[in-house]
Amino acid sequence: MNQEEQVQVLGLWGSPFSKRVEMVLQLKGIPYEYIEEDVYGNKSPMLLKYNPIHKKVPVLVHNGRSIAESLVIVEYIEDTWKTGPTILPQDPYERAMARFWAKYVDEKVMVAMGKAFWGPESEREKERKEAYEGLISLEKEIGDKRFFGGETIGIVDIAADFIGYWLGIVQEVSGVTIMTAEEFPNLKRWSEDFVGNNIIKEVLPPKQKLAALFKTPFRSAATSG
Amino acid sequence: MNQEEQVQVLGLWGSPFSKRVEMVLQLKGIPYEYIEEDVYGNKSPMLLKYNPIHKKVPVLVHNGRSIAESLVIVEYIEDTWKTGPTILPQDPYERAMARFWAKYVDEKVMVAMGKAFWGPESEREKERKEAYEGLISLEKEIGDKRFFGGETIGIVDIAADFIGYWLGIVQEVSGVTIMTAEEFPNLKRWSEDFVGNNIIKEVLPPKQKLAALFKTPFRSAATSG
Repeated sequence: MNQEEQVQVLGLWGSPFSKRVEMVLQLKGIPYEYIEEDVYGNKSPMLLKYNPIHKKVPVLVHNGRSIAESLVIVEYIEDTWKTGPTILPQDPYERAMARFWAKYVDEKVMVAMGKAFWGPESEREKERKEAYEGLISLEKEIGDKRFFGGETIGIVDIAADFIGYWLGIVQEVSGVTIMTAEEFPNLKRWSEDFVGNNIIKEVLPPKQKLAALFKTPFRSAATSG
Repeated sequence: MNQEEQVQVLGLWGSPFSKRVEMVLQLKGIPYEYIEEDVYGNKSPMLLKYNPIHKKVPVLVHNGRSIAESLVIVEYIEDTWKTGPTILPQDPYERAMARFWAKYVDEKVMVAMGKAFWGPESEREKERKEAYEGLISLEKEIGDKRFFGGETIGIVDIAADFIGYWLGIVQEVSGVTIMTAEEFPNLKRWSEDFVGNNIIKEVLPPKQKLAALFKTPFRSAATSG
C-alpha cells in the first residue's frame, strides 16, 4: 500500500453496521484510523460533510473521498484492495448468491429484528415472527457449511454479524427470544465459529459494555446503514 | 455467446422491477425468453421453484440457475456478459457511488413512493414528503449530467426507471403529484432522455395500458423485488 493512503472509518462502537466495515478492513489487513461519532448527541461536521444524504455511520473516507452504506463500503474495499482474503466469491453466480443473501439479511432479517426489539409495541410480535422466518431461511441456507460462503468469512457472514453476536446479548437483556440454540443448531455453530475467529473477535465490542448499552432505551435509527 | 446459453426472465409486464432486468439484457444485446408471471393470481411452479424465498418477480434463470432481486440480477448480468455497454463504472469509487445511488433510489425513494400512492391513507402525506425529499437529492445528484453515471445509461438510471416513466403516469391517474417539471428540471430532462433512448423505449410498457392498470387497486407488494 502506498504511504500516502489515508483510510478513515467514522463509526459507532456498538453498531453492527460500523463493525462490518472494520471487520473487512481487519480481515484484509488494511490499516485505518477509527473515529468514533457521537450520533446520539452532536453529529460532527465531518459526518455531515462526508455523509450528507443519510448523516449516519459508518462512513469510509479513503484519501478524502467518502462512501456510505456498510454493504456498499464492503464491496468498495473488495474492489479497491486486492490484498488479503476475498470477501465476495469470484464466480459471477456465487457472487450474485452472496449479494442476494447479504441483502436478505440486511433488508429482511435485520429490519424485522430492529422492529421486534425496538419498534412500536403493537408491531413487535408480528416482526418477531418475521425475523424468525428469516432465521429459518438462513438456517437452511448455511446448512453444514462452515461460513455462508464456504470455508472462509465472506460478505454474508459480515452482514449477519448482528445475528452472530449482538442477538444473543439483546435476547438476554430484553428477555425476548427469537433464536434458540435448539431450533437453530447450524446458526448456533456458525455463530461460534464467526465470533471465535481471531480477527473478528478483536473487532467485536465487549459483551458487558453492549449489555449495558441495550439496557438503556435504544435509538436504532441512528446506527443503521 | 455459446449456443447452449439459455436466458429466461420471469416477469410482470407492468413492473418497473421486472423491466430493469429486461432493459439491461436489451442494452447489452443478450437474447432471452420472457415468461409473464401471474403474480396476482396463481404463482407458477416455475416461480416458486426459482424464487422460493421471496416468490416475486423478476427472476433471471441462466442455464437453469436462478437469481432473484432486480439489482442483484443487474450486477450478475454485468459480471457475466462482457459484451455491450457497461452498466456499472469500472473505477471502484465510481462503482461505489453508483451502488449507493441505486440503493438510495430503491430503498428510500421507491419505498416512499409506493407508500405515498398505495400505502395506508394515514401515512400517505408523510411518505409523499419523504419521496419528495428523495427527489430533491436526486435532482441535485444528476445536475447537468445526461444520465446519472455520465453519458450512457447505467445502473442508477435503470434503478430509477419508475421515476423516469411510471411516475408521470401514476401522478396523472391518481391526481397526486410528487414531482413537477418546474421544481425538478434536471430530472425532467433526464426522464426525457431516458425514455427517449431507442432501446429503453422498446422495453417500456405502453402508457395507456399502464394507466388502465393503475386505475385498478394496486397490490404493490407482489411486484417489488
